[in-house]
Amino acid sequence: MKTKALPGFRDFYPTDLALRSHIFNTWRAVATRYGFEEYDGPPLEPLDLYTTKSGEEIVGQLYNFRDKGERAVALRPEMTPTLARMVAARAGELRKPIRWFSIPQLFRYERQQRGRLREHFQLNCDLIGEAGPLADAEIIALAIDVMRAFGLGPQDVRVRLSDRRVLTAILQQRRFPAESFAKAFDFIDKVERLRREQIEEFSFSQNKAFAPATVQDLVDIAAIRGWDQLHSELAKSPESLEAAEPLQEVYQSLSHMGLGEFVEVDLTIVRGLAYYTGVVFELFDAGRTLRAICGGGRYDNLLRELGGVDLPALGFGMGDVVLGELLKDRGLAPVEGPGIDVFLAFITKEDIPDVLDLAHRLRDQALSVEYPLSPQAVGKQLKLADARKARVAVVVGPDERSRGQVILRDLRRGSQEAVAQSELVDLIKVRMHG
Amino acid sequence: MKTKALPGFRDFYPTDLALRSHIFNTWRAVATRYGFEEYDGPPLEPLDLYTTKSGEEIVGQLYNFRDKGERAVALRPEMTPTLARMVAARAGELRKPIRWFSIPQLFRYERQQRGRLREHFQLNCDLIGEAGPLADAEIIALAIDVMRAFGLGPQDVRVRLSDRRVLTAILQQRRFPAESFAKAFDFIDKVERLRREQIEEFSFSQNKAFAPATVQDLVDIAAIRGWDQLHSELAKSPESLEAAEPLQEVYQSLSHMGLGEFVEVDLTIVRGLAYYTGVVFELFDAGRTLRAICGGGRYDNLLRELGGVDLPALGFGMGDVVLGELLKDRGLAPVEGPGIDVFLAFITKEDIPDVLDLAHRLRDQALSVEYPLSPQAVGKQLKLADARKARVAVVVGPDERSRGQVILRDLRRGSQEAVAQSELVDLIKVRMHG
Repeated sequence: MKTKALPGFRDFYPTDLALRSHIFNTWRAVATRYGFEEYDGPPLEPLDLYTTKSGEEIVGQLYNFRDKGERAVALRPEMTPTLARMVAARAGELRKPIRWFSIPQLFRYERQQRGRLREHFQLNCDLIGEAGPLADAEIIALAIDVMRAFGLGPQDVRVRLSDRRVLTAILQQRRFPAESFAKAFDFIDKVERLRREQIEEFSFSQNKAFAPATVQDLVDIAAIRGWDQLHSELAKSPESLEAAEPLQEVYQSLSHMGLGEFVEVDLTIVRGLAYYTGVVFELFDAGRTLRAICGGGRYDNLLRELGGVDLPALGFGMGDVVLGELLKDRGLAPVEGPGIDVFLAFITKEDIPDVLDLAHRLRDQALSVEYPLSPQAVGKQLKLADARKARVAVVVGPDERSRGQVILRDLRRGSQEAVAQSELVDLIKVRMHG
Repeated sequence: MKTKALPGFRDFYPTDLALRSHIFNTWRAVATRYGFEEYDGPPLEPLDLYTTKSGEEIVGQLYNFRDKGERAVALRPEMTPTLARMVAARAGELRKPIRWFSIPQLFRYERQQRGRLREHFQLNCDLIGEAGPLADAEIIALAIDVMRAFGLGPQDVRVRLSDRRVLTAILQQRRFPAESFAKAFDFIDKVERLRREQIEEFSFSQNKAFAPATVQDLVDIAAIRGWDQLHSELAKSPESLEAAEPLQEVYQSLSHMGLGEFVEVDLTIVRGLAYYTGVVFELFDAGRTLRAICGGGRYDNLLRELGGVDLPALGFGMGDVVLGELLKDRGLAPVEGPGIDVFLAFITKEDIPDVLDLAHRLRDQALSVEYPLSPQAVGKQLKLADARKARVAVVVGPDERSRGQVILRDLRRGSQEAVAQSELVDLIKVRMHG
């Protein structure tokens, strides 16, 4: 067969899908503990839903086309515009705060780099209608608890926490002119990835807004780590201390939840300038060998701009790809499918009606059951039972059947016994729960 | 906000998604009982994956376009070509029989009729590598057990069962010329939807292959219902009886499983001519007010044609739309979300650290927990607890806190008591499981 999957798109064979299901199930379980309800929208949306938020530049990264009704449409590259559309359409009737999550598949036509995909799944959790820092703490705690539910601790993953408002206050206190803030944010966002000579070059040529001294200011600000260092910086002005109150409250709330050791204040977490308005955060593997696992923050103006309803909001997105790599790396991914409960083997064709009856009664007890769909040697059948990792095998044959019995083999213990056919379903139920 | 969802695409608000999850969870649970493993493929595939199977005509119904790499691509209109591609790529290493299921979202640009959607989700179950009738019975039993798992019985849904080979034998026995078979199949497929005058017209003008007498033959064949009537027809020739052996074995196997009363032989079930090669079936609501819930059958040549591997195969597709309508109609759809387990209320701001600690410890027990994210009157908080259908509410206040206690309210019984804060998590765990 010549046709292959498109580059950047994944086939999920059952072993791949077992990992995906493990990720989705864990996402759903933890979101539900936080009272979040699942929603979804169409994977294909009108193109202007995305250009309204991100400008025409985004079109270069989209799977966009004209449908047979001449509508300009695009495969969704992100979920927030759909969320804004759906919330706006029913803003009056939805109880606040709105706690919603979704697990959309998202699509971007990016230039293909090694291993870079053009689709991924992303857990989106959003909390709409609460302006206070307890909401920020709640959404960050949810992201951390997802990690904990996968078996990852503070030695594995770290939250880097910042606040757009704190960074602004520090820039003001260090007397940066207001018109340079956007460029300063951009510099701080990138500083970790710049070499020394690039930083110097930045100050003199590319960006005349900064004299060398202020570049050093920015390098110093970017080097602040943790609450104590931040507090020393903030203590230089009462305005800065006040601007940092929400961030401090978020940090303290996470500590009250017992999650403080996952979190580090780090002003180099900037994220999209046009989008976020307050606390922002990213979740990384502690060794920093992978891209960000999760990113989010507060975007209080977006619903007004996109949806025409004025509601404070915040949320995060967590993709399945980096997370899956981390779980495999830590040995926390499911190795293979769980196998079936019962394999039914038969000796003669005349045994088949009893096999069908037993199979159906066992399945009605929610047990997973297989049997051969064509006659074959019993030894071969029992090999198939092993290959399917069945917990027990039942052999139905004419001799036992004439006595109303079947052979029950425990494939883990290696034992076997003749049991009454009428008692088999109950016996297996007991064994499965034991 | 001006942008709406595209026509024919659904938004899933949490109440809609609760029904979808109920359907998906039931599909997964029953497929798993049958030893089926979940797989998935990309929602966007190369266009020629579909034109190879269905010809260029299908393009008129597709969401197809050229991507930014000038590849001709299409949103998947069905899952079988992806399945064939994936199986062919690993045909040697996959254990047979392959029992796979998937729940893809599928897309067709159909002329929009009232309520007709352009996307839907479909359970696809396929069994690959078994030629015998036990496999047909297995796949049909799975479809029926999905219905039973939703609470639908033989009074609600019916399987209509046919076999391409039986219909061919009857046509031969009634001396239809071989070159008229395709037209005869087409007539029998449509006869239920034709009026008397259309049938007469059919015989004389549109389709000269049939003299009036043979049209009556076809009408008679189409009127056959159930095994006994079919047997009278078949008894006219030993060849017909032999051709009907697989169908009879499927029917008997389903009876051995206790599912016979769901099934009726009905030769008007024809389905795609180019596709199916043996037993075919459709599942309908018993009142026949809705479109088919599910359809499938044996397609032994398709994997060779599409994927270049010669493996017998059979399967079915079951969409979420008609099924969802039937479940709502029968009162079997979940009415609303299950609500949360615990709502934590607080009286003063100083109570918040204890609320955060309790919330987190309760969530670590997999309980779903909410608390107000900004201070508000306790009465208002308890109303929110009711609105969220919390099972218990906990009130944390300064007086109780000074005694190491909190108030535990059972919102279903209306009772309340002061309990030790240190024992709260255990007390609630017991109450939830009680």
